[in-house]
Amino acid sequence: MIIDCHGHYTTAPKALEDWRNRQIAGIKDPASMPKPSELRIGDDELRQSIEQNQLRFMRDRGSDLTIFSPRASFMAHHIGDFNVSAAWAAICNELIFRISRLFPDHFVGAAMLPQSPGVDPKTCIPELEKCVLEYGFVAINLNPDPSGGHWKEPPLTDRHWYPIYERMVEHDIPAMIHVSTSCNPCFHTLGAHYLNADTTAFMQCLTGDLFKDFPTLRFVIPHGGGAVPYHWGRFRGLAQEMKKPLLQDHLLNNIFFDTCVYHQPGIDLLTRVIPIDNILFASEMIGAVRGIDPTTGHHYDDTRRYVEAAAIEPEARRKIYEANTRRVYPRLDRVLAAKGATR
Amino acid sequence: MIIDCHGHYTTAPKALEDWRNRQIAGIKDPASMPKPSELRIGDDELRQSIEQNQLRFMRDRGSDLTIFSPRASFMAHHIGDFNVSAAWAAICNELIFRISRLFPDHFVGAAMLPQSPGVDPKTCIPELEKCVLEYGFVAINLNPDPSGGHWKEPPLTDRHWYPIYERMVEHDIPAMIHVSTSCNPCFHTLGAHYLNADTTAFMQCLTGDLFKDFPTLRFVIPHGGGAVPYHWGRFRGLAQEMKKPLLQDHLLNNIFFDTCVYHQPGIDLLTRVIPIDNILFASEMIGAVRGIDPTTGHHYDDTRRYVEAAAIEPEARRKIYEANTRRVYPRLDRVLAAKGATR
Repeated sequence: MIIDCHGHYTTAPKALEDWRNRQIAGIKDPASMPKPSELRIGDDELRQSIEQNQLRFMRDRGSDLTIFSPRASFMAHHIGDFNVSAAWAAICNELIFRISRLFPDHFVGAAMLPQSPGVDPKTCIPELEKCVLEYGFVAINLNPDPSGGHWKEPPLTDRHWYPIYERMVEHDIPAMIHVSTSCNPCFHTLGAHYLNADTTAFMQCLTGDLFKDFPTLRFVIPHGGGAVPYHWGRFRGLAQEMKKPLLQDHLLNNIFFDTCVYHQPGIDLLTRVIPIDNILFASEMIGAVRGIDPTTGHHYDDTRRYVEAAAIEPEARRKIYEANTRRVYPRLDRVLAAKGATR
Repeated sequence: MIIDCHGHYTTAPKALEDWRNRQIAGIKDPASMPKPSELRIGDDELRQSIEQNQLRFMRDRGSDLTIFSPRASFMAHHIGDFNVSAAWAAICNELIFRISRLFPDHFVGAAMLPQSPGVDPKTCIPELEKCVLEYGFVAINLNPDPSGGHWKEPPLTDRHWYPIYERMVEHDIPAMIHVSTSCNPCFHTLGAHYLNADTTAFMQCLTGDLFKDFPTLRFVIPHGGGAVPYHWGRFRGLAQEMKKPLLQDHLLNNIFFDTCVYHQPGIDLLTRVIPIDNILFASEMIGAVRGIDPTTGHHYDDTRRYVEAAAIEPEARRKIYEANTRRVYPRLDRVLAAKGATR
């Protein structure tokens, strides 16, 4: 089985974006604020938006199941206040829930949280628990910078975030650390902000001792870990100067990297440098980079080709494709085990 | 000949730091503001601080000449106003000038600019021109984020920066794009802010068309280009979606990466992915990562070992060590040519 741990619903019917635009307009003009019930997307529309897009590519590329969450760049936690984020997160998560019901063999949900800059993260817990306990979601996306490129919240190691971590541990779910759209003109969302956030989150964890407080907390750092594997020697050296334990002891029981790196040399480096147990297959397909690479004739985000071509053992590939992800996402493992899929 | 294009004066006598601390105290208490003339560091002290440190390592590792600039993390452009930065930059650059006179075969200067958040970059031109025309410096360090991790200046492609670029072109000097200390607690200076800035600067250039306006402008992106080579497929794909030319045409006549990547797999990726003509040897030695890698028994920042071990032709190595740098830094080439060192 091949599990893609990083998919977003980037192909939603346009009604979703229209509703969001009306909501944003409603921030300044409350009379025009739409109700959640005004968004109407039928099951046929949902089905079509998936079958013609993600599911088609999954079949073409041979992946079986995607851990699916709302579109990352559309989370835009910097827009409006907590109530705006709460209504928007609830709508987006419900669509993911419906897709997971329509395609139970192919999609399982991960929740967007209703974060808002400067607002206590504990306000996100009701949505988190609804998604896990009622919707059967197996993970959350946690945005370390809800300001959208201004980086005003404390580092992830700060007690500010502990209410979220306590529930993650309680419900045995990991968080993918994933920012949203940058509203800072210095940072291109897909080409700078995403990768910077990955590097930043890793370095925050390296600097602190978060996993002493939460030994079972698990973070997935997407986009192949930003700059981290390429600079693994730098990070090992910085940890050494800070008198931290070796990275494998200090961080690698808790931090995992996905394979959203869109060329062969990148995946080769990732699999050479990072222990196989810490690598999870992912593509973020129909996402940041949707084109076909003229040097290969294949989609940039067809990451399975790179993993297939990497100089690793079949057993390592099996871990990357399935076993590691089932270990990091135990609630997914339980769903699969209940269906008879042994690890 | 081996030229290290990225060295900072990290080993200055403590009197320099003491003066700076008095200057910082003087921002709030003008009566205690020190005069530049109150900093006294003798030639013997300068000589010793170099001979026992950078020069010793250069001899050990076999590099001949370092392009040397003031300590990057101490630039701290976010502290005080333009006058504070101007006095501090003048002092730091003068020390570099003196070192280049004391060790003319081993050090050539690159200037720190007296940048200050929100201040027009053209205010930096007198210091820039003094350093180039009087001190014989061959490059500048340009900080894309003088706010120190809050990223409040416009992107490098904005006309805001054009006065600097006009002088760079006039005097035929490149800029290393190098931030300083982060005062944003989200960003560790060495483990996040530096690498993020490298990625950010590259993506700003990718998004814009700066090199149409300045076809001969040259940027060196340090620390191996941040996350860029590891995600080269992502950047190629993003450029393609933006209908930009191929990266080699769009950016690689103007952008160069150094080799400050502190492990073998990183240098292997860099030399595999980035055209050899765009790679410049550098170590940033006695800098971010000063320890010895227990897996190799050698200093992390002894980057020559990685370049020696990379699977590249001797001619490629010669380009990385010398020829590329002499092409990117023509004023250095002229100095070397005058001494009889043919390319």
